[in-house]
Amino acid sequence: MNRLPRDAEHDYTRAMAKARRDMVAQASGADLTHVGSFSFEPEVLPGNLEGFSGVAQVPIGFAGPLLVNGEHAQGEFYVPLATTEGTLVASYNRGMRLTHAAGGILSTVIDDAMQRAPCFVFGDARAARAFGQWVDRNFEAIKAKAEETTSFGRLRNIEQYAVGKMRFLRFDFTTGDAAGQNMVTRATRHACLWMQQQGIEGLEHFALAANLDTDKKHSPLNNLHTRGKRVVAEVTLPAHLIEAVMHTTGKALYAQRQLSNMGSLLSGSVSNGAHYANGITAMFIACGQDVANVAESSAGFSYGELKDNGDYYISITIPSLIVATCGGGTGLPTQRECLEVLGAHGKDKVLKFAEIVAATVLCGELSLGSAIVADQWVSSHERLGRNRPE
Amino acid sequence: MNRLPRDAEHDYTRAMAKARRDMVAQASGADLTHVGSFSFEPEVLPGNLEGFSGVAQVPIGFAGPLLVNGEHAQGEFYVPLATTEGTLVASYNRGMRLTHAAGGILSTVIDDAMQRAPCFVFGDARAARAFGQWVDRNFEAIKAKAEETTSFGRLRNIEQYAVGKMRFLRFDFTTGDAAGQNMVTRATRHACLWMQQQGIEGLEHFALAANLDTDKKHSPLNNLHTRGKRVVAEVTLPAHLIEAVMHTTGKALYAQRQLSNMGSLLSGSVSNGAHYANGITAMFIACGQDVANVAESSAGFSYGELKDNGDYYISITIPSLIVATCGGGTGLPTQRECLEVLGAHGKDKVLKFAEIVAATVLCGELSLGSAIVADQWVSSHERLGRNRPE
Amino acid sequence: MNRLPRDAEHDYTRAMAKARRDMVAQASGADLTHVGSFSFEPEVLPGNLEGFSGVAQVPIGFAGPLLVNGEHAQGEFYVPLATTEGTLVASYNRGMRLTHAAGGILSTVIDDAMQRAPCFVFGDARAARAFGQWVDRNFEAIKAKAEETTSFGRLRNIEQYAVGKMRFLRFDFTTGDAAGQNMVTRATRHACLWMQQQGIEGLEHFALAANLDTDKKHSPLNNLHTRGKRVVAEVTLPAHLIEAVMHTTGKALYAQRQLSNMGSLLSGSVSNGAHYANGITAMFIACGQDVANVAESSAGFSYGELKDNGDYYISITIPSLIVATCGGGTGLPTQRECLEVLGAHGKDKVLKFAEIVAATVLCGELSLGSAIVADQWVSSHERLGRNRPE
Amino acid sequence: MNRLPRDAEHDYTRAMAKARRDMVAQASGADLTHVGSFSFEPEVLPGNLEGFSGVAQVPIGFAGPLLVNGEHAQGEFYVPLATTEGTLVASYNRGMRLTHAAGGILSTVIDDAMQRAPCFVFGDARAARAFGQWVDRNFEAIKAKAEETTSFGRLRNIEQYAVGKMRFLRFDFTTGDAAGQNMVTRATRHACLWMQQQGIEGLEHFALAANLDTDKKHSPLNNLHTRGKRVVAEVTLPAHLIEAVMHTTGKALYAQRQLSNMGSLLSGSVSNGAHYANGITAMFIACGQDVANVAESSAGFSYGELKDNGDYYISITIPSLIVATCGGGTGLPTQRECLEVLGAHGKDKVLKFAEIVAATVLCGELSLGSAIVADQWVSSHERLGRNRPE
Repeated sequence: MNRLPRDAEHDYTRAMAKARRDMVAQASGADLTHVGSFSFEPEVLPGNLEGFSGVAQVPIGFAGPLLVNGEHAQGEFYVPLATTEGTLVASYNRGMRLTHAAGGILSTVIDDAMQRAPCFVFGDARAARAFGQWVDRNFEAIKAKAEETTSFGRLRNIEQYAVGKMRFLRFDFTTGDAAGQNMVTRATRHACLWMQQQGIEGLEHFALAANLDTDKKHSPLNNLHTRGKRVVAEVTLPAHLIEAVMHTTGKALYAQRQLSNMGSLLSGSVSNGAHYANGITAMFIACGQDVANVAESSAGFSYGELKDNGDYYISITIPSLIVATCGGGTGLPTQRECLEVLGAHGKDKVLKFAEIVAATVLCGELSLGSAIVADQWVSSHERLGRNRPE
Repeated sequence: MNRLPRDAEHDYTRAMAKARRDMVAQASGADLTHVGSFSFEPEVLPGNLEGFSGVAQVPIGFAGPLLVNGEHAQGEFYVPLATTEGTLVASYNRGMRLTHAAGGILSTVIDDAMQRAPCFVFGDARAARAFGQWVDRNFEAIKAKAEETTSFGRLRNIEQYAVGKMRFLRFDFTTGDAAGQNMVTRATRHACLWMQQQGIEGLEHFALAANLDTDKKHSPLNNLHTRGKRVVAEVTLPAHLIEAVMHTTGKALYAQRQLSNMGSLLSGSVSNGAHYANGITAMFIACGQDVANVAESSAGFSYGELKDNGDYYISITIPSLIVATCGGGTGLPTQRECLEVLGAHGKDKVLKFAEIVAATVLCGELSLGSAIVADQWVSSHERLGRNRPE
Repeated sequence: MNRLPRDAEHDYTRAMAKARRDMVAQASGADLTHVGSFSFEPEVLPGNLEGFSGVAQVPIGFAGPLLVNGEHAQGEFYVPLATTEGTLVASYNRGMRLTHAAGGILSTVIDDAMQRAPCFVFGDARAARAFGQWVDRNFEAIKAKAEETTSFGRLRNIEQYAVGKMRFLRFDFTTGDAAGQNMVTRATRHACLWMQQQGIEGLEHFALAANLDTDKKHSPLNNLHTRGKRVVAEVTLPAHLIEAVMHTTGKALYAQRQLSNMGSLLSGSVSNGAHYANGITAMFIACGQDVANVAESSAGFSYGELKDNGDYYISITIPSLIVATCGGGTGLPTQRECLEVLGAHGKDKVLKFAEIVAATVLCGELSLGSAIVADQWVSSHERLGRNRPE
Repeated sequence: MNRLPRDAEHDYTRAMAKARRDMVAQASGADLTHVGSFSFEPEVLPGNLEGFSGVAQVPIGFAGPLLVNGEHAQGEFYVPLATTEGTLVASYNRGMRLTHAAGGILSTVIDDAMQRAPCFVFGDARAARAFGQWVDRNFEAIKAKAEETTSFGRLRNIEQYAVGKMRFLRFDFTTGDAAGQNMVTRATRHACLWMQQQGIEGLEHFALAANLDTDKKHSPLNNLHTRGKRVVAEVTLPAHLIEAVMHTTGKALYAQRQLSNMGSLLSGSVSNGAHYANGITAMFIACGQDVANVAESSAGFSYGELKDNGDYYISITIPSLIVATCGGGTGLPTQRECLEVLGAHGKDKVLKFAEIVAATVLCGELSLGSAIVADQWVSSHERLGRNRPE
């Protein structure tokens, strides 16, 4: 067994990256020329990756202009989409053309919280209940403790969930412009240690997490109570535009919405959207987000209304959009550039970024929904997505 | 409103990519130097992206060696992980060290199917029921039709789901080494058009999809009936190794498993895993997968057994792992290189790749689970994930 | 600790019932006069209850006539509803008046299966997979074995669900006019013992049930694959009738349907109906059904369509309606009388009964839905449901 | 079409009940002798039923003594179970014997709330968000308004759920000893009318309910936030008792718990219990509860721990147990008698009743769980449940 080379002192160098590529290339027989082609110095990477060896080059296309009427994002945006799936950029682009013609998209962040949910296990359910009451009474002290470890995180509230002799606390923080998962884990741990030091009667066991957060997977709990930002994007499409740009009608889109709701309810799906994940993932890769959060961020709720004059109102709600404009991968070279294209890098930008993501998702829903209804779905993939296996 | 430059004839060139970057840079004031730094010719991209303008450079580290005892993947692998999240590579690496010492991971693909689920709407429920019977009787003819459009796709069976006057058919295909979403959409549409030509009594409306597939989102239906590959990875860890490598015990891991199950059940989560999404996403970006499929692929089921001697058996099941070794982004330069590192590019490789992904996920579950139990979780992020927002 | 009196030989007598009431009355100080007032001989009860001591007298009202256009139920029915909830009978009655005027309700049983889902645990996932293939190959033999224990049960198919090293088999039986839970448990056990006698390679453990059935609780699995009868009831309501009888419009009902769908999706509910449980429970108590099956039977899917002329189409689907017209409580005195009111006692009647239940549920959905929309909901409870606590 | 006879003035009489039975008997050819045999005067029924015509006589057996260590229920209870399902009473009885020998069951009500969840629809998501903030600021005034209509109901808090341009408010009331659904509907409506009178900016539409309550069906929302009482029952069983009474071991029960958790997770079930519904339904029918609430009340969470000495700890949690000791059917003759057997009729008794129900459920889980593990499940049904269809 060959260990990958590491240099305890100077690991983030082109030389060490090459040393690892060489070893992997030799072991596997693969050529790593393109992986080894990157345009930045590895020294920017500590905190983002261990054992840096090269890069994945994911092609980027821009869709737009996307016209957003947000509280933070105002005007036209060219949206960077990093993807290898043919038709994706074209499809979102079509939705952007339609909503631009309709006067743009109203985009609104309606909630904001990041969580860690420790589990306290007691001798019996009564001790667990008493602890829950203690937590309510001591919220301010817990909050003060939690916030000692962070300059941005603010403990907003603590949800409580009870089962058996367990009490799950779901700590809800606002986290500034960071996604905040590490921040809230640290702060929650710190507060929980302090709580334990106060002497919790009947406590048998403590776990800093036990799947109720719900982190890196989806749940109705996230749908109900938000994880990250809860964002709504909405637009009313004039009948004539739906026909001119999408070759269908509001009535047809509305009928399709009914069937899609039944399909979602029947399958028990966490989402009644068509493909929120596509646009979100492409923006996340381009913009240095934690892409694994697609697990949570891809779920949501689409809602339509057919107006008497044939106009069609549609909204999408993303209850758990986990985004950042500081920290994580947002400061890396290409990632930062993409955020800057949106004017959304750095401090006080995360709500703006969230609004743009939601507006983008809405465009994708309109485009795919229309393609299904107008039976253009397969033909557009035939035309643009010819990357079939041979 | 400025449209992005397109060249109807020669759009996949460095010059056109630059033209688009220039326009976006000018509109936004952003510098796109790094985005413009790529090591391949854009002419490889048609079918993968419209309006190519540059690349996201996502840093890659290798974890390993991962010791896999699969039916297709045998031996040691260095797993390419493209991520910007500190500690991720180190954490998976630790799990790989543990399972290597334990003799490697048994990894098995136990099911394989990709779907499209059209909805047929009838005058009433009886007509819908009669249609369902007709589909059963005419399966062979439908299969023959569906397969006319594809050289790899094979229609395995058609699931039927009934609600009201609707009949949803969920066409299950095997798709060779491709993920196959486009393939099955095309084939399903072709078969459905033929079915409609036969004259379907009472048919009022048809939709090629209406959220029952379930595509780019998760559902209990996917958990039950697979989407992509259903893969299991399992290992039994000797008690002494858990202690030596993870600083905890099988008993502690098992107790944590109980709490995690309660957290999952209580939140209604589609998954009782800790963070399958992390490893899957990092491999998907590196290896040219459709990363948006993290929505489906990130859910799964962890199961543990504590042996009388303190050894700990653990398995993870990914019911909807959507992977490809042909088509999509698998042929792009860095993506292909990463697949080749695993010996998993091209034909007859997709099951091997699936086995490696599942084995990797198992390592991540062990590592994070142990960190929570041993209270090393926050400290490791302190040490490795210092990319905090300033 | 005082044990309740039992007589090993002659336990089902008025005297023994009285002996038990006397003891309970003495221990608790309660008077059991009404509980002791029953009109039948206890000797009818063996197989239905141990320790017979008296009866609950649940008041019955009839709603109707309900006009049903079923394949088995044809014409007008007076539906017995045993309940203590004010307004329930009146509300269902109103829906029956409306649908009668609309020409009656089309009611159709579209699927039929009762299950037991044993779990086979193996040494590893590969052995579990091999077993699954063995089951497929040996279906006919398994079926023959299973049917040895029953004269009515027929093994229709075996669903397979795989997770880790487990293989769940979900045996689907038709069970004639019985609900069939005991029948299928016995038959499944018999078949599984035989399977184990054949020597199942790698089998470590067997459990006759482990919550996948899903029995006496609800699940998306039941929604997808039916437990009991899957029944649809549907009707198109002329616009003028909605207004005359319900004081609202199809348009208003349709708008409410949209909101209800969102409420269901957001809460993750297993059902998007309003109160299927009310009518089902009242019929179940009256007609000697296993009322605990309300857990499964109460979930379902409502679907509406607004026609251009203002007419409103509505369907309800009950995916897991567990009913019987033979066996269980169906032969007891009042229960049998109520079934006979519907012409639905005994052999070859269960589909008829299922159709009537579904038609009844539809009436309740229309009535409550209209009451909400017309803001008559509270006022009708004020008028009819004055059983407030004092 | 023949209407059922009604007497506007004197409808609750033996004569009118007979008139209706006669008409139904004539129309259907059924004999309604037993249905017509009841021991009370119909004049007790207004508020409980319209069109009283007779009764369902549901046989009652007592199980017990059940030994409860509650905060309200203390000591031994004989539990009235109204059912027609053979083995049910015997099975619960066996669990009661076991837990009695183990020192009784700790039973605790840990939360208490009944809801109505109106939906406010706005012009856009921003208006909906502003309304949510207004509700927070004006909680005291809303509470005062809501409580004007009720002498028992107290508005505890208002949960808010946002999707698109909708804001769902989930009003949480405590309702004294009543179940309280009508009480909270009336109070919520009253408060909402007042809110609308204050002028809600941007309000387009209002619905008093739209499936988020979640009423008469189950949902993860109910699991998380309680509907009715949230009750836990728990016991630690000495190893020797498990063997003596149940013929199995704690280890075997624990292994079965693991499989049951997997079955529940895989099926997406709202519950990981075995058959909570059985005991709950039988108590609900006997004790005059709204039996349709079995839809919500039957879901829950079982949790086990195997001790080093072979003892087995088990808890069950019912998150949405909807019970009453005043109002509804609790005052009817047999129903009241059964509540009195438990010392649980009338004021200040509802928590006691909830504790007894939960303790009963725990006994049923132990009994069925043990039967499955010891393979006595089918044989006990063979012995006691011989009510097979002939």
